[in-house]
Amino acid sequence: MSERRKIAVFGLGSMGMGMARSLLAAGHQVHGFDLNAEAAKRFETFGGAPAVADKVAGDLDIVVSVVLNGAQTRSVLFGEAGIAPRLKPGAVIISCATLAPEIARQLEKEAHSLNLHYLDAPISGGAVKAAEGALTIMASGTPKAFAAAKPALDATAQKVFQLGDAAGAGSAMKAINQLLAGVHIAAAAEAVTFGMTQGVSPDQTLEVISQCAGSSWMFENRVPHIAEADYSPRSTVNIWPKDLGIVLDIAKEARFSAPLAAAAMQQFLAAAGSGLGDEDDAAVAKVYARNAGVTLPQKP
Amino acid sequence: MSERRKIAVFGLGSMGMGMARSLLAAGHQVHGFDLNAEAAKRFETFGGAPAVADKVAGDLDIVVSVVLNGAQTRSVLFGEAGIAPRLKPGAVIISCATLAPEIARQLEKEAHSLNLHYLDAPISGGAVKAAEGALTIMASGTPKAFAAAKPALDATAQKVFQLGDAAGAGSAMKAINQLLAGVHIAAAAEAVTFGMTQGVSPDQTLEVISQCAGSSWMFENRVPHIAEADYSPRSTVNIWPKDLGIVLDIAKEARFSAPLAAAAMQQFLAAAGSGLGDEDDAAVAKVYARNAGVTLPQKP
Repeated sequence: MSERRKIAVFGLGSMGMGMARSLLAAGHQVHGFDLNAEAAKRFETFGGAPAVADKVAGDLDIVVSVVLNGAQTRSVLFGEAGIAPRLKPGAVIISCATLAPEIARQLEKEAHSLNLHYLDAPISGGAVKAAEGALTIMASGTPKAFAAAKPALDATAQKVFQLGDAAGAGSAMKAINQLLAGVHIAAAAEAVTFGMTQGVSPDQTLEVISQCAGSSWMFENRVPHIAEADYSPRSTVNIWPKDLGIVLDIAKEARFSAPLAAAAMQQFLAAAGSGLGDEDDAAVAKVYARNAGVTLPQKP
Repeated sequence: MSERRKIAVFGLGSMGMGMARSLLAAGHQVHGFDLNAEAAKRFETFGGAPAVADKVAGDLDIVVSVVLNGAQTRSVLFGEAGIAPRLKPGAVIISCATLAPEIARQLEKEAHSLNLHYLDAPISGGAVKAAEGALTIMASGTPKAFAAAKPALDATAQKVFQLGDAAGAGSAMKAINQLLAGVHIAAAAEAVTFGMTQGVSPDQTLEVISQCAGSSWMFENRVPHIAEADYSPRSTVNIWPKDLGIVLDIAKEARFSAPLAAAAMQQFLAAAGSGLGDEDDAAVAKVYARNAGVTLPQKP
C-alpha cells in the first residue's frame, strides 16, 4: 500500500473523473478541478475534497492534468491563475492530455525552473478503463518524476510504459498510437460499408475479418457498434479532429508526409461537420454510408 | 481420410506450389500447370504427376486455379486452350485468385453451363500457411460445389468460411480483407517512420503499440520486418497495386468512395515505381523514410 498523498486532478471529463475516482479509491486525498462547476460538485459527492486552489496548492504532492489539449494544460499549470507557481518544491505534475512532444518538452522545462517534477504521461484506454484504474500510460520523465508520480500511476494504470528520462517521448508515442487508431477506425468503417455495397452485412464482415489478416484492435472494438447501431459515445467523433490534428501538426513541423492520417482526418471532419461530433467515433461509418447510398443497420 | 482424388493445380507460384504440395501430402494425384516450365518441372520432383492437360483433363475431379487475377483465371479455364470444356460433368473448379465478385459470378455461370461445379474460394494467409496446408479460404458456392471441393479444402485450409450458396460472396469478403490489410500495412509504415521523426525507434514503437489500441494484425506482422531491416519477400509490394487495384475497381463500379484504400494505393505505387516491387511489402516504409529524410534500420 502506498502512502496517502494529496492530489489535485484538473479536468473532470470522462477520463479525468475516472482517474480522480480511482485515486480516491486508492485512499488518497483528491481535489477535483473543472471549469464546469457541476462536474466539480459531482466529484465531491463521490468523496472528493473541496476544490479551493488557493488553500490547497502548497500542500499538494501530485497534480494530474487531464484537460483537452496543450493550450489548456499550459493554462491550468502556468497561466495567469495557474497552479504550478504555488506548488511546493518536489511536487510532481503528471500531464495526461494528448499534445505535441515539443510542448511537453517546454512544459517540463518550465516545471523544472520551479523545482517541480514533470511526467509526460499521455493515457490510452478510454473512459471504461479510466473508471477501472486500468489505463495504459505512455510516460517519459526523470527517474525522480517517475518516483514522485508512482502512487498516482499505481492507482490509475494497468500498464505504464517508461519511455525515457525526458519529456517528449511519451507524447510522441501517444501520437503514433493515435495516428494508427484514427486510421484504423476510419478503415474499419470504410471496409464495412464497402462490403455492404457488395451484399456483405456488417455482421458477416465482423465475423470473418476478426479472424483474418485484415483485423485490428479498433476493427474488433468498433465494428460491433456499427453492426448493433449503437452510437452511444464511448469515445466521440470529436476526439479525432483534435488528436489527428495534433498528429498532422507534428508531422507538418517535421515535414513528414502522412497521407493515411490526412485521409482519415477528412472523414472525421466530414462526420463532425455533419452533426455527428458527439456520437461514438464508429459513426464515421455514417459518412461512408451516406456517400455510397447504403443503409447501415438501424436500432430495432 | 478422404478418398484419393485426381486434381490439377493451375499456377505454381508461392501460393499455388504450397497448395499443390499440400494436396500431394494428403495423398491425392496432383498435376501441376504453370506457364513457367521450370515451376512445373520442380513440382514433378516433389512427386507431381505429369502436366499433360490433353491426357488428364477428362479424368480430373478437381481443378484448383491459383493464378494471378481474373483475366488469367478466365484464360486457364475458358480461354482458347482452357481446360473447363474438357472436364467431366460434376468436376469442380476451385478459383482462388483475388478477383471482382462480378467476375466470380460470371465464371460460375459459365461453369454451370458445362455441368461443372464452381467454388468462389479466395485464399488468405501467405506462402508459409500455403506450404503448411493451413490457409484461410473465404468460399461461396452451391452445396454441391462445397461437397465436391471438400477433399481439396481439407488438404489446404485450416479454416474455410462458408459465405453463401453462390459465387461472389467469397470474392467480396476477400476484397474487404485486402482493403484493410493494404491500408494497415501502409499505416504501420506511416506510423513507424512518423515515430522516427520524433526520436522513437521502430523497436520502441513495435514494443509499445503492439500492446495498445493502435495495433493491428499487419502492424504486429510487418513492423518486425522494418525493425530488423529484413525485406526478403514473404508477400511482395507488387501484390498491392494488383489487389488494391481490384478493390478500387469494385469500389468505382459501386460508386463507393474509399479514400484510405486510395491513399494506401498511392504509397504502394510509389514503392513499386521506385524499384521495390519484388521486396517484402513492408518496404513501403522506404517510401515514407525517403520522403521524410529518415534512415530506416539497416542490416548489420
